[in-house]
Amino acid sequence: MPAYAIGVDLGGTNLRIAAVDAAGNLLQKITTGAQVAKGRDFVVAEMTDAIRQLSAKFASLGELTGIGIGVPGILDMETGVVRKSPNLPDWIDYPVREEIERRLKTQVVLENDANVAALGEKWLGAGREVDSLCMITLGTGVGGGLILNRRIWRGMSGMASELGHINVEPEGPLCGCGSRGCLEQFASATAIKRMAIEAIAKGEAPELARAMKEEPEFSSRIVYQMAVQGDGAAQQIFRVVGAALGSTIADLVNIFNLPMYVIGGGVASAWDAFAPAMMEEVRTRSFVYTATEPDPNLPNKKKTIITRALLGSDAGLYGAARLPLLEVRGAVAVSS
Amino acid sequence: MPAYAIGVDLGGTNLRIAAVDAAGNLLQKITTGAQVAKGRDFVVAEMTDAIRQLSAKFASLGELTGIGIGVPGILDMETGVVRKSPNLPDWIDYPVREEIERRLKTQVVLENDANVAALGEKWLGAGREVDSLCMITLGTGVGGGLILNRRIWRGMSGMASELGHINVEPEGPLCGCGSRGCLEQFASATAIKRMAIEAIAKGEAPELARAMKEEPEFSSRIVYQMAVQGDGAAQQIFRVVGAALGSTIADLVNIFNLPMYVIGGGVASAWDAFAPAMMEEVRTRSFVYTATEPDPNLPNKKKTIITRALLGSDAGLYGAARLPLLEVRGAVAVSS
Repeated sequence: MPAYAIGVDLGGTNLRIAAVDAAGNLLQKITTGAQVAKGRDFVVAEMTDAIRQLSAKFASLGELTGIGIGVPGILDMETGVVRKSPNLPDWIDYPVREEIERRLKTQVVLENDANVAALGEKWLGAGREVDSLCMITLGTGVGGGLILNRRIWRGMSGMASELGHINVEPEGPLCGCGSRGCLEQFASATAIKRMAIEAIAKGEAPELARAMKEEPEFSSRIVYQMAVQGDGAAQQIFRVVGAALGSTIADLVNIFNLPMYVIGGGVASAWDAFAPAMMEEVRTRSFVYTATEPDPNLPNKKKTIITRALLGSDAGLYGAARLPLLEVRGAVAVSS
Repeated sequence: MPAYAIGVDLGGTNLRIAAVDAAGNLLQKITTGAQVAKGRDFVVAEMTDAIRQLSAKFASLGELTGIGIGVPGILDMETGVVRKSPNLPDWIDYPVREEIERRLKTQVVLENDANVAALGEKWLGAGREVDSLCMITLGTGVGGGLILNRRIWRGMSGMASELGHINVEPEGPLCGCGSRGCLEQFASATAIKRMAIEAIAKGEAPELARAMKEEPEFSSRIVYQMAVQGDGAAQQIFRVVGAALGSTIADLVNIFNLPMYVIGGGVASAWDAFAPAMMEEVRTRSFVYTATEPDPNLPNKKKTIITRALLGSDAGLYGAARLPLLEVRGAVAVSS
């Protein structure tokens, strides 16, 4: 009887729940808007309803190995309490694992959302062939996940991999974390929009100014479209994104000497616009990278690969389903 | 019959060889000048002579578990070849392990010198109580060593932990690694001397200028002594050292969330002069640190400790002796 797992990806915008078998095949996916404004009870009820629905449907298929949930924000791994989450305003010191387990009458595995995305890419995405990788997720903010020797690196209190807060420019823009010039201030969707608005205010970006007037929902995506269309001001913004990412990746390569660094999240779709500046910065700033740069003439050389994520927004969903599959324990039963 | 190991610390200035028992007691230490100018054959012969001397002396004591050697520079772990070493000019692509094993007719364990220093501090120094730590060694250059879950983290090709080349100031002084503004350009003994000479050239440091004239061997140590005596220019230099170290440690805390960061090497003796600026920078730049800062009222809290190394220049010697003790294998016999 083949085993399957249920993965949950709880974002600020979408709540997605999927049944995935042990080989990584998606059996079914349920997507709902994460109606955060209706409060945490509503979101958790939607989640547990969908889990029940999937577990009832696939009961005949095989053993439910477990339920994994990717949660944004600061999570106390021991107690399963969400301390704080920027995207879930009323999730403050919220014992979410206890609450879900009470409703389902079974155990669930919680994990930070950036870590589950890294785990997903390791399992089924860009990192299938490596044992260790570092993933940087460029979204509204910038998150990070570390897989070292096939295991998530959480640090002593689950706060590791805050890669969005690596220093890029010590006197740079003030960051929400209290520091200045963190990666997040240059490479998040929020930062791209801010840099566009700054360029417009300085009168340096007439085309961007026109786009902002025409488009009420002016966003990083529009800045990217303008860069693709050849607008110099938009292209310059993505060079800043790339240089900041390159500086951070150079640090990470010098620190870890890993075989792979993966860039994911929505902003990663602008890869073509930021990758050249990123790679130039990595080459300049990391001699560990230049010593391990891929060389087509040396296929067996130990090489550092810097690449785009492959699973897009599904990385977190697959990674969440992978969580219980990695744990050695018996099957779970969902109470209906 | 109690086991013992022989550790070798090969520096640019000293060659030290010690017999250490499994409990970490030093049985005997031999120190010679590493007469690098006489060439690698001379240095290796001195090393193997001292190893033979110790193994003959302690043969009656118990089993020789093995021989560990800490080597400065870039080391190919698989082949035991020193690729390049700034302190050992003629050690270029030098198969040092093969050469030593040929002479001793037994196996030896090689390791990067910054890693063995971290291992020494983990075994018998500041890190006795933790499973993971990060060590930054401030000497002529700045090195790093990472112990994750009781094991040295080497990266895929043994090039991990280049912590001296983490970015501090993107437009800062050019670094030997090809980048700019690396930690090493602010926190090494070389950098301290350079900053003092720069301050003197600008006319900002009359007392340092006087000291440099009086003292033919003007060094970072003299800058420290002047800082202790209250010279403002010297104190300002150590504030720069501290801020750069703090910025780097903030990055490392945000990345790893480890229980301990240890500062070692000769410059660490100037702790009092740079630590206040370092801690201020860590608090400003790492919210992971402020969330885990030691609190005397919460003794059981998971805390981040930033501290001085305890073993001084012996860390590498003890760590080298620890290398074979960590490996599971039979005893070795040194050919005389």
